[in-house]
Amino acid sequence: MKIVTIGREFGSGGREIGRRIAEALHYDYYDSEIISDIAKHTELAEEYVRKVIDHEAHQMYPITIARTMGPFPNPSLKMNIDIYKAQCKVIQDMAEKSDCVIVGRCADYILKENNPFKIFVCADMEKRISRCKERNPDQYSSDRDWKKAIEKVDNNRAKYYEFFTNATWGDRLHYDICLNTSNCNIKEVSVKLADLAEAVLSDRV
Amino acid sequence: MKIVTIGREFGSGGREIGRRIAEALHYDYYDSEIISDIAKHTELAEEYVRKVIDHEAHQMYPITIARTMGPFPNPSLKMNIDIYKAQCKVIQDMAEKSDCVIVGRCADYILKENNPFKIFVCADMEKRISRCKERNPDQYSSDRDWKKAIEKVDNNRAKYYEFFTNATWGDRLHYDICLNTSNCNIKEVSVKLADLAEAVLSDRV
Repeated sequence: MKIVTIGREFGSGGREIGRRIAEALHYDYYDSEIISDIAKHTELAEEYVRKVIDHEAHQMYPITIARTMGPFPNPSLKMNIDIYKAQCKVIQDMAEKSDCVIVGRCADYILKENNPFKIFVCADMEKRISRCKERNPDQYSSDRDWKKAIEKVDNNRAKYYEFFTNATWGDRLHYDICLNTSNCNIKEVSVKLADLAEAVLSDRV
Repeated sequence: MKIVTIGREFGSGGREIGRRIAEALHYDYYDSEIISDIAKHTELAEEYVRKVIDHEAHQMYPITIARTMGPFPNPSLKMNIDIYKAQCKVIQDMAEKSDCVIVGRCADYILKENNPFKIFVCADMEKRISRCKERNPDQYSSDRDWKKAIEKVDNNRAKYYEFFTNATWGDRLHYDICLNTSNCNIKEVSVKLADLAEAVLSDRV
């Protein structure tokens, strides 16, 4: 199967790019579906799974401890590992079913044997704040609060990624392309990027 | 004018990508021409200019000292500043003359008012060593020596860039796109990237 994975800084437009690439290439598109599927597998509440993956700081035990099967130093770590294992299963199933675009959730790492086309989307803070404000104008009253909230999400994504992959989130050498959306038209760039991804993936198959 | 700038890790294929993008878009292409032109402007030997820009470690005085016009702590710093000033002039002239692709030499920073499409090209060390060996099979006897030589060039490029621009060489937020060539066909990707650059630049004009 041909797989495109999207890592993204919060507010950079990564999800929109993922959706548009999927549309352009007629691939399936997975984003929050992953959370729902993990919840089903683990019998945990969807909101809890989302919190662990997207919004919670993780206790950073050394990976060697985290990866052994226990006894675990504490139950919340055990829960995080269970969620990650379900996440691997869900994402691998998606990748086996059809060509697809998968946003976030360490999919680039989980599917590394499938040789996906790996995109990381970033943007400068000013642009990300203005993008977030457009979508949720009343969530925070000041740009300073927006900045703090954005940095918190990014920080958690980076920790989650690094905890499970042992690699640096956003490091240009972990992706095929890093796209900075600060100064471009996302709609237009997505179509061109889809074209580029398709060409590279056709070579890899 | 429409400008594409290419920053690149040594051995990543950045020059080839620049040349291919220029071909695809029928833009002018500047690479070592810049060195020749600077040599003419400064009446310095071309080899000396190349050494300063590409291969020499620079004395890293604080930028505030470096940018004042003197008296200089030493003559070689004065020479470096003169070369950089000539470099700015040469690159600005190129950008005024026609649509073009410019490889290296801080062109992304020097032309920031022109809003160029900024590409940074990277690749993993293994790929870069094998690429360098293909071109110059007899230059070093071991991969370890190749690695040292490659890291030295990169280190000097990074220092030169940071000295004059006060920004981090290769930081994804300084470019529109960072492309990792470790796992792609450069010829094919260049054509697609040219298409993407042209679309973005048409919007910016």
